Amino acid sequence: MKTILEAINKPQDLKKLSHEQIKLLAEEIRHFLICSVSKTGGHLAPNLGVVELTLAIHKVFNSPIDKIVWDVGHQSYVHKVLTGRRDGFATLRQFGGISGFPKISESVHDFFGTGHSSTSISAALGMALARDIADDKEHILAVIGDGSLTGGQAYEALNHAGHTGTNMIVILNDNEMSIAKNVGAMSEYLSKIRTEPKYTKIKQDIEFLLRRIPAIGESVAKTVERVKDSLRYLLVPGVLFEELGFNYIGPIDGHNFELLSEVLEKAKKMQGPILIHVLTCKGKGYKPAECNPDKFHGVGPYCIESGEVIKNGNTPTYTAIFGETLLHLAKQDKRIVAITAAMPEGTGLKKFAAEFPKRFFDVGIAEQNAVTMAAGMATKGMRPVVALYSTFAQRAYDQILHDICLQKLPVLFALDRAGIVGEDGPTHHGLFDYSYLRHIPNLTIMAPKDENELRHMVFTALNTNGPVAIRYPRGSGLGVPIDQSLQQLTIGVADEVKNGTNVAFLAVGSMVETCIEAREILASEGILASVINARFIKPLDEQMIRKVCKNFVIIITVEENVLAGGFGSSVLEYIHDQNIGGVNVLRLGFPDQFIEQGARKQILAKYGLHAAGIASTAKSYVQKIKV
Amino acid sequence: MKTILEAINKPQDLKKLSHEQIKLLAEEIRHFLICSVSKTGGHLAPNLGVVELTLAIHKVFNSPIDKIVWDVGHQSYVHKVLTGRRDGFATLRQFGGISGFPKISESVHDFFGTGHSSTSISAALGMALARDIADDKEHILAVIGDGSLTGGQAYEALNHAGHTGTNMIVILNDNEMSIAKNVGAMSEYLSKIRTEPKYTKIKQDIEFLLRRIPAIGESVAKTVERVKDSLRYLLVPGVLFEELGFNYIGPIDGHNFELLSEVLEKAKKMQGPILIHVLTCKGKGYKPAECNPDKFHGVGPYCIESGEVIKNGNTPTYTAIFGETLLHLAKQDKRIVAITAAMPEGTGLKKFAAEFPKRFFDVGIAEQNAVTMAAGMATKGMRPVVALYSTFAQRAYDQILHDICLQKLPVLFALDRAGIVGEDGPTHHGLFDYSYLRHIPNLTIMAPKDENELRHMVFTALNTNGPVAIRYPRGSGLGVPIDQSLQQLTIGVADEVKNGTNVAFLAVGSMVETCIEAREILASEGILASVINARFIKPLDEQMIRKVCKNFVIIITVEENVLAGGFGSSVLEYIHDQNIGGVNVLRLGFPDQFIEQGARKQILAKYGLHAAGIASTAKSYVQKIKV
Ligand SMILES: [Mg+2]
Ligand SMILES: [Mg+2]
Repeated sequence: MKTILEAINKPQDLKKLSHEQIKLLAEEIRHFLICSVSKTGGHLAPNLGVVELTLAIHKVFNSPIDKIVWDVGHQSYVHKVLTGRRDGFATLRQFGGISGFPKISESVHDFFGTGHSSTSISAALGMALARDIADDKEHILAVIGDGSLTGGQAYEALNHAGHTGTNMIVILNDNEMSIAKNVGAMSEYLSKIRTEPKYTKIKQDIEFLLRRIPAIGESVAKTVERVKDSLRYLLVPGVLFEELGFNYIGPIDGHNFELLSEVLEKAKKMQGPILIHVLTCKGKGYKPAECNPDKFHGVGPYCIESGEVIKNGNTPTYTAIFGETLLHLAKQDKRIVAITAAMPEGTGLKKFAAEFPKRFFDVGIAEQNAVTMAAGMATKGMRPVVALYSTFAQRAYDQILHDICLQKLPVLFALDRAGIVGEDGPTHHGLFDYSYLRHIPNLTIMAPKDENELRHMVFTALNTNGPVAIRYPRGSGLGVPIDQSLQQLTIGVADEVKNGTNVAFLAVGSMVETCIEAREILASEGILASVINARFIKPLDEQMIRKVCKNFVIIITVEENVLAGGFGSSVLEYIHDQNIGGVNVLRLGFPDQFIEQGARKQILAKYGLHAAGIASTAKSYVQKIKV
Repeated sequence: MKTILEAINKPQDLKKLSHEQIKLLAEEIRHFLICSVSKTGGHLAPNLGVVELTLAIHKVFNSPIDKIVWDVGHQSYVHKVLTGRRDGFATLRQFGGISGFPKISESVHDFFGTGHSSTSISAALGMALARDIADDKEHILAVIGDGSLTGGQAYEALNHAGHTGTNMIVILNDNEMSIAKNVGAMSEYLSKIRTEPKYTKIKQDIEFLLRRIPAIGESVAKTVERVKDSLRYLLVPGVLFEELGFNYIGPIDGHNFELLSEVLEKAKKMQGPILIHVLTCKGKGYKPAECNPDKFHGVGPYCIESGEVIKNGNTPTYTAIFGETLLHLAKQDKRIVAITAAMPEGTGLKKFAAEFPKRFFDVGIAEQNAVTMAAGMATKGMRPVVALYSTFAQRAYDQILHDICLQKLPVLFALDRAGIVGEDGPTHHGLFDYSYLRHIPNLTIMAPKDENELRHMVFTALNTNGPVAIRYPRGSGLGVPIDQSLQQLTIGVADEVKNGTNVAFLAVGSMVETCIEAREILASEGILASVINARFIKPLDEQMIRKVCKNFVIIITVEENVLAGGFGSSVLEYIHDQNIGGVNVLRLGFPDQFIEQGARKQILAKYGLHAAGIASTAKSYVQKIKV
């Protein structure tokens, strides 16, 4: 039998369905997602939570004329299913496949690309204001989670939208979760609206009482009038949003399609900025995800029946090694505090949080606050460690520069997911950090060649009296033996890990091991390569570079970062500043373009940054220079 | 007669003064500031507004044990006067003198350095949490303006502080102004609290009515109880802050020292996060500043009697030329919209705002929202121009990368105050933009050699179908003739402005003219230099570089930016990527350190980036290479 879903190829196909059919469709979509994501991996739980909401939006509004901006965008799967991309799910998040995020180039229904949090209201506001100038009439919607609402940009946009009074609809998808449990006063406020009937009933209560006040004297009558007048804008749940200039509607059951449709129809006819507070359940309809929404937020392939994630070996991840090392050090040094921006699990800090709850801080998706708060702590003698993904640290570039480095405060930035992250693609690769950090004065930047070195670097950083960033890759370490005792590395000193005579690899981070493998290939072709583990992007090991320049005619820098302004660029700067001549420097890394999604290995291979690619490029270069 | 002020060398000296004496002291401080700043220039109006507030803070609290964080920090003059730095005001903001902002290295009373907006609550929160861990007891205060409250980071910190419940005091210094008139829904909310008695009186009103309700039946009695219960947290002015977990106190007259002292004493004894809403008048006590708080926000030397600012010549500024050019183009192209982050005057957009109010957007101090909002507008076919100071654009690095450049949206970033800004010092110099922008794919980056070229660049950028940044210096242009017709520059094509044979200057932006002057000096010593105006930092004019490398053995790149990852670094990258040998490249620019305050000329000279310095360095280099 043909399913309802099979007949849905565009949002318009929903229009003719009855509510009963849509309820069935919702179940089919859930089934489809649970099966599909079990094979590809992906953001399951957020999408299960917005099935009815997405159906209601597409039933009531008219995409792509009406425009929907999905904050962060990992909850756009249902939207993708309904906008002609159902078949694409077999390749979801894979090399050449459909993106796990909205993407302008993928569909006219993806009117704005997202990936980083808290941008949707700004983008929708811009569209709404542009529409007003053009005298167009379409509806503009932003769908934002309660987690994304912790990001300051969301507030900047609410504040500005409320001021302009333009017609736009913000749908607050409140599931009480960020990736983990949501935090912050706003989150508590939303939960108060959810749970405290007294809070939501006060308006009716006062109206009830006003009717019972005997009209004795003018002063009472006047006061009654005044109170009635004020009630309009004071006594509503969502007063906080009302005060920011929004019409608040809610809270609404986000799994009740009829109700959602009614409310959206009503909102469609209202004027000014509207905020609809929708309550959803992350992981709705799939028990393992409902019970572990955190685990099923973004998940690899899993067994549908058991909900068990399919494991890929037992080598500990860089993340885990970082977390354990920090925990170990924190036991000896009370000054160590850990800060995460809504990623206690993703950054490896869950055990730290459990062991030292008073020294652990989840600030929500608020990287700017995380960094400046760390600065404040450092002025009081603490040793704050801010653990962020490389791509999200971009949000705090100014704070790193202005609040930490200008003041030389001893804060450690643990930048996880640096380099190619894989399936999350261009919005999530950590390919810029060498370039956006290297020019900041007073900052030390390290990258470990393996998970064991990461431990020594964390130790070294926490013994350094100034700001330090350590960046390391996503996923498993190399499986190397772990030293029991932690070593203090000398700042700015590299390590020659393999010697050679024809060519020197100056490699950094993940690329050290890859260069060692490339060296094997080259050796079999008679080219003997030295491999130097740079360890420090800043300060550079200048002595080592001078030595290498003396001993080699050919130097190849290798980094998992964009080439522009990166590590190799820094090496070039030094060589020229020193007027060192007669040396040929080839820089390997990523070209000046955004890099697509795909398995990490696949992407590295495509850009020639796997061992075979590096060996082959090195060989050609050696031959060219020798000519 | 000795003044009271002369006897104040530390905050403790205030403790023994009577209220009457403090009122006199307030007048003396105003007089001192008005005289002192009339000679040095500085942020007059914000400081005149916080005289009583600062006195009350230092009377009630005990700095430096208790810690005060001044948001932005340009309102910290009174604090500086009271903390032993009165004599320093003769050198305020000058080379080697005291800073116009709090600075850790300047005084133990400056516990946290500021300069960029909206960081104070984060920093204070970090201190408070560190204090809690250490079981210390001191008080932590943040003083933040209503303008700074438009920045998302302030909200991130409020949201987190309210969640933690830690003891801290946020003083909201509400003068209804940012630099210009404040904007945003929050600002309207504050003004409602200020002005609408009905709003603030509703709590009393309802209490008054509740007493008049006859106790008829259980349901009425119960409802009365319920309402009484809810009133506690619902019906207060400042409910918005209460909902974020703060105790709100206010609004308070910020020029009433007794009242301020009382309230601060009360707050000192309270638990949890407290927000005190203080109403002040920007420029208070000096008529010209009260009437023109915008003009006297940051001001050059002026005549005390007339309030006339002392003029320095009539050459139009880059800012003015940019503003006029944009206005001119906007008359012909309806798609052009202009966005500023609280700086309509500073970015030259005031006339644009007056002429095209519907196409002009002041988003408040909210650079993140400004940029993503521009992205939203661009998706709808507009041509948004985001005018920011270079240093403040750092706040939106992620949005520029992720929302604009990844999506290749045609947004123009007009980055004013690039390079050395002078007296505002390290927090305000725009010395990083080449480095933090150059590695972003899809972005075109230009810098004009003079104000006339700026016009052509604005025109060219708005005819370019993708993101563009133009960066230009603070202050007057060169006074060159202005072409009437606007020219379309070819993207990525440089311009040889002076020819030569011994050495080639590859100069960019402001440094083109300086290199032309250096060329004169060199010529008199028999060294003939070519000067090339790079125009484009990205894409580089590769053909030109190849030509220069063919014709010269010595190339000197010159930029008003840090050297790390900057323009010269990009030239090196290209030369090596092309395997061009036999050429010596010297890069001139700023070293890897934060650069101090001082007059622009003075700073450029100190770092050898004036004509004489460049000539002298070039001469030595030529001699060295020739050896
Ligand atoms: Mg959520
Ligand atoms: Mg203000």
